[in-house]
Amino acid sequence: MLRRLIAYNRLGSKNPTFKLIACYSTSGKQRQGKIYESASDAVADVKDGSTILFGGFGICGIPEKMIDALKEKGVKDITAVSNNGGVDDCGLGVLIKQKQLAKIIGSYVGENNDLVQQYLGGELAVELTPQGTLAEKIRAGGAGIPAFFTLTGYATLVQQGGAPIKYDTNGNVEVASAEKPVQCFNGRNYVMEESIFADFAFVKAQKADPYGNLVFSKSARNFNAPMCRAAKITVAEVEEIVPVGSIPPDQVHVPGIYVKRIFKGTNYSKRIERLRITEPKENGKPAAEPKPAQLLRERIARRVALEFSDGMYANLGIGIPVLSSNYIPKGMNVMLQSENGILGLGPFPTKDQVDHNLINAGKETVTVIPGAAYFGSDDSFAMIRGGHVDLTILGAMEVSATGDLANWMIPGKLVKGMGGAMDLVASPSTRVIITMEHNARDGSPKILESCSLPLTGKEVVDLIISEKAVFQVEKGVGMTLLEFAEGYTVDDIIASTGAKFTVSPNVKQMAQIGCD
Amino acid sequence: MLRRLIAYNRLGSKNPTFKLIACYSTSGKQRQGKIYESASDAVADVKDGSTILFGGFGICGIPEKMIDALKEKGVKDITAVSNNGGVDDCGLGVLIKQKQLAKIIGSYVGENNDLVQQYLGGELAVELTPQGTLAEKIRAGGAGIPAFFTLTGYATLVQQGGAPIKYDTNGNVEVASAEKPVQCFNGRNYVMEESIFADFAFVKAQKADPYGNLVFSKSARNFNAPMCRAAKITVAEVEEIVPVGSIPPDQVHVPGIYVKRIFKGTNYSKRIERLRITEPKENGKPAAEPKPAQLLRERIARRVALEFSDGMYANLGIGIPVLSSNYIPKGMNVMLQSENGILGLGPFPTKDQVDHNLINAGKETVTVIPGAAYFGSDDSFAMIRGGHVDLTILGAMEVSATGDLANWMIPGKLVKGMGGAMDLVASPSTRVIITMEHNARDGSPKILESCSLPLTGKEVVDLIISEKAVFQVEKGVGMTLLEFAEGYTVDDIIASTGAKFTVSPNVKQMAQIGCD
Repeated sequence: MLRRLIAYNRLGSKNPTFKLIACYSTSGKQRQGKIYESASDAVADVKDGSTILFGGFGICGIPEKMIDALKEKGVKDITAVSNNGGVDDCGLGVLIKQKQLAKIIGSYVGENNDLVQQYLGGELAVELTPQGTLAEKIRAGGAGIPAFFTLTGYATLVQQGGAPIKYDTNGNVEVASAEKPVQCFNGRNYVMEESIFADFAFVKAQKADPYGNLVFSKSARNFNAPMCRAAKITVAEVEEIVPVGSIPPDQVHVPGIYVKRIFKGTNYSKRIERLRITEPKENGKPAAEPKPAQLLRERIARRVALEFSDGMYANLGIGIPVLSSNYIPKGMNVMLQSENGILGLGPFPTKDQVDHNLINAGKETVTVIPGAAYFGSDDSFAMIRGGHVDLTILGAMEVSATGDLANWMIPGKLVKGMGGAMDLVASPSTRVIITMEHNARDGSPKILESCSLPLTGKEVVDLIISEKAVFQVEKGVGMTLLEFAEGYTVDDIIASTGAKFTVSPNVKQMAQIGCD
Repeated sequence: MLRRLIAYNRLGSKNPTFKLIACYSTSGKQRQGKIYESASDAVADVKDGSTILFGGFGICGIPEKMIDALKEKGVKDITAVSNNGGVDDCGLGVLIKQKQLAKIIGSYVGENNDLVQQYLGGELAVELTPQGTLAEKIRAGGAGIPAFFTLTGYATLVQQGGAPIKYDTNGNVEVASAEKPVQCFNGRNYVMEESIFADFAFVKAQKADPYGNLVFSKSARNFNAPMCRAAKITVAEVEEIVPVGSIPPDQVHVPGIYVKRIFKGTNYSKRIERLRITEPKENGKPAAEPKPAQLLRERIARRVALEFSDGMYANLGIGIPVLSSNYIPKGMNVMLQSENGILGLGPFPTKDQVDHNLINAGKETVTVIPGAAYFGSDDSFAMIRGGHVDLTILGAMEVSATGDLANWMIPGKLVKGMGGAMDLVASPSTRVIITMEHNARDGSPKILESCSLPLTGKEVVDLIISEKAVFQVEKGVGMTLLEFAEGYTVDDIIASTGAKFTVSPNVKQMAQIGCD
């Protein structure tokens, strides 16, 4: 319905008495033009060779109806920009299986075997991009910024070039990444990254109004929010179309100006990639005897927990870092950040609490604590890159005596991607703690004079905690042994470490936090 | 109250049967540490010479209690980053009057006479920065991005340098702006702009929880949102402190990680800079006879209105452009953007609807239509710079035959600032219409072969609409006369125009939209 307002307006102060009949008509007419009938209508004009942004993180918040419609339509040679490559039979995996993609630009592809096989077999190009850089390239594309500078990836393959993007069918690198320009600001070297602007952005939101204003649900906001802004044609599939005026203007996540088409999807799968459950305590039943590997992990986690302090903001990698949060002392408040867009992570959900729209960066189901906040991936990495997160704890394949970190790639063997790790370690304002088993399975050292694997970051590590030792790493100083675990001597640590280090005059036995 | 969750978590898939007692403590303890008693407590550690970001647009959403506390404290030599300079006795005006500021970085200072006098008198440095560039410099500062590229300001004083920043006491330029680097991307030249990160950010929000999560009211979000993220210490004054958990995580505007201190202010002045009211229609009473100047403005506005089309997004400058929205035809939906953070501007309010938190970019009280959205200044100019606004209509002091625009400065005479104009005209995806009186008061032409005044943008104008004529401006072609007003001849237009133009073979009388 058209609400027509007839209004008398005063003109400027020079004409205080003149009154004019105004005929505003920007006042409430429902614009039907944006509402499409179905996914196939909404993607009807996608052509072979298009570049498409696909929202979602893992399979949370993916535009699944449009992915199905593209499969149906059979378009080929798509360049897909998507943080992940889906899983084998879900998300982008659907289009990969059909060999409809020519290239993927993303940060983490470790969950999709088809993708890795097509990549190594020379059928699919993969341009691995740090997650925060990817989010910012997209945000910049939508914001009219052709390029920006970031610390992320400096002195790694991402900046130096040479990362394999495409193999030939014999397994040789056919296309490698180019070197990126570096510029110094305030004494630090930054990488220049160019923006991304696509033909289409396909996103999933919880609800839309007919003007295209969008609201997302929980951590399903992720890449959907910035992607909406960075394409010629943005199409949003939603679970609900609500009347104009029913989304309060203060609560709109993406204003309708960015969204050209919307349609309502039905029968959403609500599939979960990694179900993690907090099971109710079984009173009286003795816990199973922990295995040695578990004790080792627990020892590291209980040492890590001593690094938390009240009021701290921390981002914890999957595995031992997340485990360490179990040992945060009673009464201490540590706000946990998850790079897919959560501040205030809580424990894993009970069965009743499980929500497919609420996952952590490891794609595990989670809950949030009271006082939490959700945001998009661009905002999340602005937070991370800007150094607002006090502490990040990650695993490593290798660490060097100068604090270099390698944890994302084994050339020719392991292709997963760096995810958000390069961004998390890049800010000098964020303390970086590495948790790792001291030695590889064959007993060889993982702490080395210099890393043999491609770097995640150069001179970024502040503290190394293994099951055997705790090392401080300082720029211009190198490694200092602060603590070693019960049952080991300093000589044992020297023998199992591939790099020289100083022994602190105050070296002591490895501390452990209690857990009552 | 500490909510302590005891949970059994499954470890990774390798250890499916092992269960662990988790002691999460990130789960709801109110962190009292962020809540300060008063403004003076919250600013107690501000030192002479500090750089401070002040939120607000005009005097909407300004941290008035902290400004008062700084006056009381008497700190000096402050570098203030603020879009505006307040008015003489309100906002930053309070500190300017006390001569507590050494420098202002802002986009528009035209509302404050003290400021302009101190500037021209050599007592205060003023670094005028395009509004969108200012918002993005702050956003970048908070996001760990030291520099970025933008079209805004290319080939103007902002990029070429030489803008007076500080005068000596004899009125000579003592400090002028430096030239900024230019780089070409995709065939266009962009300016490199460096980010801003300050000692303090003082912002005003509607409410906060004890974790520092913030919610703003309507267009009072403006610069407050990006500024929260770009300082060592961010202090938010709020009208209400609500319990942890009472702000839904999907509705947090600024997550608490960015906010170090909050306090509750009282007795807010709710002052309004420019009250505009829609008065009820007085039935039967004949409208006053319009004066010639009004008829002239109306003629331009009624021609401009023909450029609107259904579904369009437009940003209208104050004066004639805003007036033109009165002539948008019935049934046509044009969404109006206001660069202080509104999409979906409505008519001026009735007396009962007036809200000091809801103003347009001209600082006038407004309303919004159903389906509107609010956002911060960084998001607003991302929208503008990214070319998502279809049309912008502005006034001009001079326009050149090649589409150069000058509307922000008369050297040595007029110091107001460019506000958002440089950003609005910069995007090639946004159509730029200039509305202007054809000639200056002395009869001299304002449409010239080249502008004599400092530029707002180079080769940016698409259409010129005066009371005498309508010209199309095309890159590489120049100006074409499309229409001339009743009572004029082509020769009249030639005589009153300072630049050569082609006469369209289809030249016709100036069209006018009807208004029923």
